[in-house]
Amino acid sequence: MTDLHELEAIKRLKHAYFRALDSKNWALMRECLAEECIARYDGGKYSFDGRDKIIAFFGQYMDPPTMITLHQAHHPEIDFVSADKATGIWYLQDMVINLQNNTTLRGAGFYHDEYVKRDGRWQISLTGYERTFEEIEQRGDTLKLTHNRFAKK
Amino acid sequence: MTDLHELEAIKRLKHAYFRALDSKNWALMRECLAEECIARYDGGKYSFDGRDKIIAFFGQYMDPPTMITLHQAHHPEIDFVSADKATGIWYLQDMVINLQNNTTLRGAGFYHDEYVKRDGRWQISLTGYERTFEEIEQRGDTLKLTHNRFAKK
Amino acid sequence: MTDLHELEAIKRLKHAYFRALDSKNWALMRECLAEECIARYDGGKYSFDGRDKIIAFFGQYMDPPTMITLHQAHHPEIDFVSADKATGIWYLQDMVINLQNNTTLRGAGFYHDEYVKRDGRWQISLTGYERTFEEIEQRGDTLKLTHNRFAKK
Repeated sequence: MTDLHELEAIKRLKHAYFRALDSKNWALMRECLAEECIARYDGGKYSFDGRDKIIAFFGQYMDPPTMITLHQAHHPEIDFVSADKATGIWYLQDMVINLQNNTTLRGAGFYHDEYVKRDGRWQISLTGYERTFEEIEQRGDTLKLTHNRFAKK
Repeated sequence: MTDLHELEAIKRLKHAYFRALDSKNWALMRECLAEECIARYDGGKYSFDGRDKIIAFFGQYMDPPTMITLHQAHHPEIDFVSADKATGIWYLQDMVINLQNNTTLRGAGFYHDEYVKRDGRWQISLTGYERTFEEIEQRGDTLKLTHNRFAKK
Repeated sequence: MTDLHELEAIKRLKHAYFRALDSKNWALMRECLAEECIARYDGGKYSFDGRDKIIAFFGQYMDPPTMITLHQAHHPEIDFVSADKATGIWYLQDMVINLQNNTTLRGAGFYHDEYVKRDGRWQISLTGYERTFEEIEQRGDTLKLTHNRFAKK
């Protein structure tokens, strides 16, 4: 029978991952990922092998204050392979406001993750999603950005 | 006191239901629904009695690759009526891109569901939601669909 | 080790809070808030000390049928300070359709809450969020509101 404390720990791991991503907290992100973590975002369009390469990608593409991201994932379906290995399906909804290009991306998709427990702590060892859809809108004059946490004051 | 394993099983049932719906996986959908399942979607606007009729509706209206749907439900409030009967409230957010009409529907509402456990497995025996709002937008030239999982390659 | 029944009770409290808010059910909202509850919405832009003042704010600003709101919060990270005190982080996505101004607000942010258990029941004693972003769109002719639960029939 599923250990519900371990299940909650894995859910919190994924929650912290998204909080790290959308608040650009790369130190917290680093804690969420196993050293050998493999990422296959957007059907493999963005592929990285190893935590350092994933973090480097985030630091380069996601860090600028002109990139405002929302990644929220729902509907977890988590299964334990063993006491220290688990898999997870999540249903992503994401939005990326790119103030350089003046675009808004909106999309959704399903994550297929793997998790590993080491030294009493769960980390993500594999993460990737396949989109159901994605659309990109040119931001027009009728739309005003009224708050951006990352903008220089 | 609530059996938390049963609670998790019901949440996963609902999660699988939405994964089936938005990935057009009608075999998985069939597993989620009790044979006598009653559906009262959108305040009864879409009403079906029995799993076969619900599946037929999905197959007819939701299956075309020109219908891209997102249904995500949050904030579960699940109560057990007995060991094998439960009720659930969920807060829906949905979006339907209709490429035939060139429209995007967006809306939200509250589900009131019933669940039944048979042969050790939970299924949905009643599902329906009442909207808080719905809006429909004509998709314009500034919006480009950049990915559709269901489109012919 | 976390008491998972208490954890579930706190999640349900927050779920009921949002159901109360977006269905304009101020009696249910009152049950969710401790008498001394402090609110610091939107980085303190909307600040209220005490349940009565919070409820008065909702009654004045959120109650009109021309205000259609969606507040959904995800990714709970809840920690127990003691048997009857807990903290919670949640990731908000919100949308406000204002039919007076003919605008749609969309945004996101992170809640930092506190909860207290009294007479066997959890309530919110502190709630507030800091936005990641907010944007406001002028609703144009290509967008039609097709359902509003709160509109006079």
